[in-house]
Amino acid sequence: MDWKPDFSSETPLYIQIKDFITNKISLGEWAVGTKIPSQRALAELFNVNRSTVVSALNDLMAEGLLEGNTKGGTKVINNTWNLLAASPPPDWSSYVQAGTYYPNQPAIQHINRAEFQEGIIRLGTGELSPDLLPSEQMKQIFEKLSAKPFSLGYEEPKGNRHLREQVVEYLRDLHIQTSPSNILIVSGALQGLQLISMGLLPRGASILLEKPSYLYSVHVFQSNAMKLIGVPMDVEGIQTSLISRYKKGYNASLLYTIPSFHNPTGCLMPESRRQELMKVCADEGLPIIEDDVYRELWFDDPPPLPLKARDPNALVLYLGSLSKSLSPGLRIGWVVAPEPVIERLADIKMQFDYGSSSLSQRAAAEWMESGLYQQHVTQIREHLKRKRDLTLQLLNTYFLGIATWSVPSGGFYIWIRLTVDVPMQMLFDRAYKAGILLNPGSIYDRNAGSFLRISYAYAKMHELEWGISKLADLVKEISISAV
Amino acid sequence: MDWKPDFSSETPLYIQIKDFITNKISLGEWAVGTKIPSQRALAELFNVNRSTVVSALNDLMAEGLLEGNTKGGTKVINNTWNLLAASPPPDWSSYVQAGTYYPNQPAIQHINRAEFQEGIIRLGTGELSPDLLPSEQMKQIFEKLSAKPFSLGYEEPKGNRHLREQVVEYLRDLHIQTSPSNILIVSGALQGLQLISMGLLPRGASILLEKPSYLYSVHVFQSNAMKLIGVPMDVEGIQTSLISRYKKGYNASLLYTIPSFHNPTGCLMPESRRQELMKVCADEGLPIIEDDVYRELWFDDPPPLPLKARDPNALVLYLGSLSKSLSPGLRIGWVVAPEPVIERLADIKMQFDYGSSSLSQRAAAEWMESGLYQQHVTQIREHLKRKRDLTLQLLNTYFLGIATWSVPSGGFYIWIRLTVDVPMQMLFDRAYKAGILLNPGSIYDRNAGSFLRISYAYAKMHELEWGISKLADLVKEISISAV
Ligand SMILES: Cc1ncc(COP(=O)(O)O)c(C=O)c1O
Ligand SMILES: Cc1ncc(COP(=O)(O)O)c(C=O)c1O
Repeated sequence: MDWKPDFSSETPLYIQIKDFITNKISLGEWAVGTKIPSQRALAELFNVNRSTVVSALNDLMAEGLLEGNTKGGTKVINNTWNLLAASPPPDWSSYVQAGTYYPNQPAIQHINRAEFQEGIIRLGTGELSPDLLPSEQMKQIFEKLSAKPFSLGYEEPKGNRHLREQVVEYLRDLHIQTSPSNILIVSGALQGLQLISMGLLPRGASILLEKPSYLYSVHVFQSNAMKLIGVPMDVEGIQTSLISRYKKGYNASLLYTIPSFHNPTGCLMPESRRQELMKVCADEGLPIIEDDVYRELWFDDPPPLPLKARDPNALVLYLGSLSKSLSPGLRIGWVVAPEPVIERLADIKMQFDYGSSSLSQRAAAEWMESGLYQQHVTQIREHLKRKRDLTLQLLNTYFLGIATWSVPSGGFYIWIRLTVDVPMQMLFDRAYKAGILLNPGSIYDRNAGSFLRISYAYAKMHELEWGISKLADLVKEISISAV
Repeated sequence: MDWKPDFSSETPLYIQIKDFITNKISLGEWAVGTKIPSQRALAELFNVNRSTVVSALNDLMAEGLLEGNTKGGTKVINNTWNLLAASPPPDWSSYVQAGTYYPNQPAIQHINRAEFQEGIIRLGTGELSPDLLPSEQMKQIFEKLSAKPFSLGYEEPKGNRHLREQVVEYLRDLHIQTSPSNILIVSGALQGLQLISMGLLPRGASILLEKPSYLYSVHVFQSNAMKLIGVPMDVEGIQTSLISRYKKGYNASLLYTIPSFHNPTGCLMPESRRQELMKVCADEGLPIIEDDVYRELWFDDPPPLPLKARDPNALVLYLGSLSKSLSPGLRIGWVVAPEPVIERLADIKMQFDYGSSSLSQRAAAEWMESGLYQQHVTQIREHLKRKRDLTLQLLNTYFLGIATWSVPSGGFYIWIRLTVDVPMQMLFDRAYKAGILLNPGSIYDRNAGSFLRISYAYAKMHELEWGISKLADLVKEISISAV
């Protein structure tokens, strides 16, 4: 909301506020059933005293437009037009609750909103900082695009042909042999997961995955009545010795894994573990989703070859994306899979959104074909490595004795465990008040209440410095007062 | 498949083909369970005699890689690696069948594939022809974009702020008063429908809609176990006198309508019918999805104001899109709705694909802000009108006495009913052989077997001329031979 009362006007502030709210209600922007922001939030938004807000709300309650409840919440219960209508207007809140798709976890809803607040320091964000995104080179790409014939129509079901050819070339370097007909272009790897969930699995299916995992942070599978079954990890990744037991115990249909620079732990699965994983899944006939979106972001050595590069039995559905290494805003990723799978997923994608943005697809193809993508990634590796080093140094300075963590060899994340007693919700709230946004571990594993996902990708150097030292202060404060 | 055998090589053609297929199988591109193309299709693809293909396939069957069935279909049943594996590889075909999302209707799958065949005349396609898409002006937009600061990160949950502001301005001209917080940017109107289906309705819900309707051509609601209940139309659109009865009889949760230049009938709902519709829905407390993607494409007079422009009770969820008037490849549309609804849908969109392409969003904002969009639409109206006129003239020349149709005052479509007896599948196949792609009416209403959706939007003038006269020939041929 951008509106503020006019402080120079002769109309009293509370009347201006009352009129503003009445207007929002009568336009249907705040439909009947809407819970309006708290008095405190409104006072902040409008830059007025809380008592001014209270006066406005009291009037609106008296007029029968709003209703307060004992918990201090206020709801729209009527609008000026209703009095004329024969029956009550739709109760949108009940519609919102009826939908089958799960809402985001409250912590994530909070984070999604807060991320766009100005000045906030984002210590957990899974995204490169804006200054690492190649805005200048993107202009070159625009220039190249404007020199080429350009079609603006719907694209082929599997995605722009030229982009798929570029992806084939790119994958060849990773020792994945495939062809354009085995590739589906998606609007980010997340959409690939969504399509797999709706296209390949029945309701009630079980999916094995690392615990903790990124996949717990979205409801792609759960919203289709599927179950996520977490398998414990060790320093090398998912414990392959447990898979056979879990597969049988839960009648699992798929295994989801992030072998390279796991989100949130940063873990890199070594060659030997990859071989074991492929063997046990081949023995069990258990297909794999390999989520490889962080692969390019290695610091000293490239990670071992993807699982998909050693997949004679076509066990692996492979996911890649430009989001982490180039630009999340492009919304371009890919699925590599056997042809009947790709055809099924492409058919659903046509019913979802008729394909990804052709602008983005052509820009992506241009990045890959021109070699600018590889150049860019080389630079990003260096930058990220420097930010990782700084972050580790800061942790060593401020967190020694109150937390433990491991050292990632690529990707965005450090998974740190607080070894002192700190209620995470309290830490999150205090940090938020101090202008720091955190990603609590419980987002990625309900039982990881003492963990935090720290990301060195988004925050600037000085933000990392200030933020991590401030965070350590908060941890110490809270843990002392808790004793 | 781009591969062709090397006709100058000393290796016999059937061996080359055998090697090619073996390779595809062992790479997992044709995984176990894949139904491979028919002998005839392979012969065409490879440019060889069918007997050459048969030799190759026979060898592969003898080696245990393929299996034929009595209907002439051939399936991959094994691969060279399997013999080593402890258990059989995943049967991807059974995965494909297990998924909950409905596949496209076979006719649509066929159309989706055939649309990208070179030289085919598309008489039913719901898309502007490439020469009506503003490729040149798009270059100007690229130039403007490359002169501006450009962020490549994930966008806000509701979509790029600046674009939402432009949409607010744009909607003001349609007498829809709203604000950026009541708008969600989506990857086309289709995605808006998908989000509504998953976000606002329980499994088992019923949706009223015009019969026929575009909505029957996708499985957005049915895949969530919802039912579409068709309400008959007359020349003014959905028959409002029936709504109350249908609502009660089916306990309907929503009504979906395309009041302006309905797909597939071309029907324009006049002012009086709009008022009746709003009245009956207000009386019944029945919310409406207003799909207004064709609004801009009027020929003589603009259509009456949207339902959303007269919506004091916040009954209407409004859908708009740039696909039909500017570029489908942009994949940009919008939902306008009460705030709790928009927040719910935005939250799901974040779990679907983390928002639409920021490239597309910024390009869309630029189109709207610069005024180029309105200029472009003015031109499109003229072009389309000319194509409509030509098409009507052609129908009058060739279809008089064998079909009836109505005259659309905007949009893309003429809904024609064949008055002679013609099995539609046969007509579709014959037309396809002659290089013409049709959209049979049954896609939009199972009982509309004698209808065709003719679109004058995609085919070029000379294609319309040749295509429609050829189509009339085919209709006459088939109907005579049927007698
Ligand atoms: C492991 C993993 N997979 C997929 C995604 C989604 O990425 P995209 O932007 O390609 O949808 C993310 C982003 O957070 C991720 O961490
Ligand atoms: C009535 C109607 N609504 C929605 C759509 C989908 O359009 P978009 O490209 O905006 O998703 C179409 C396209 O065929 C349509 O005809």
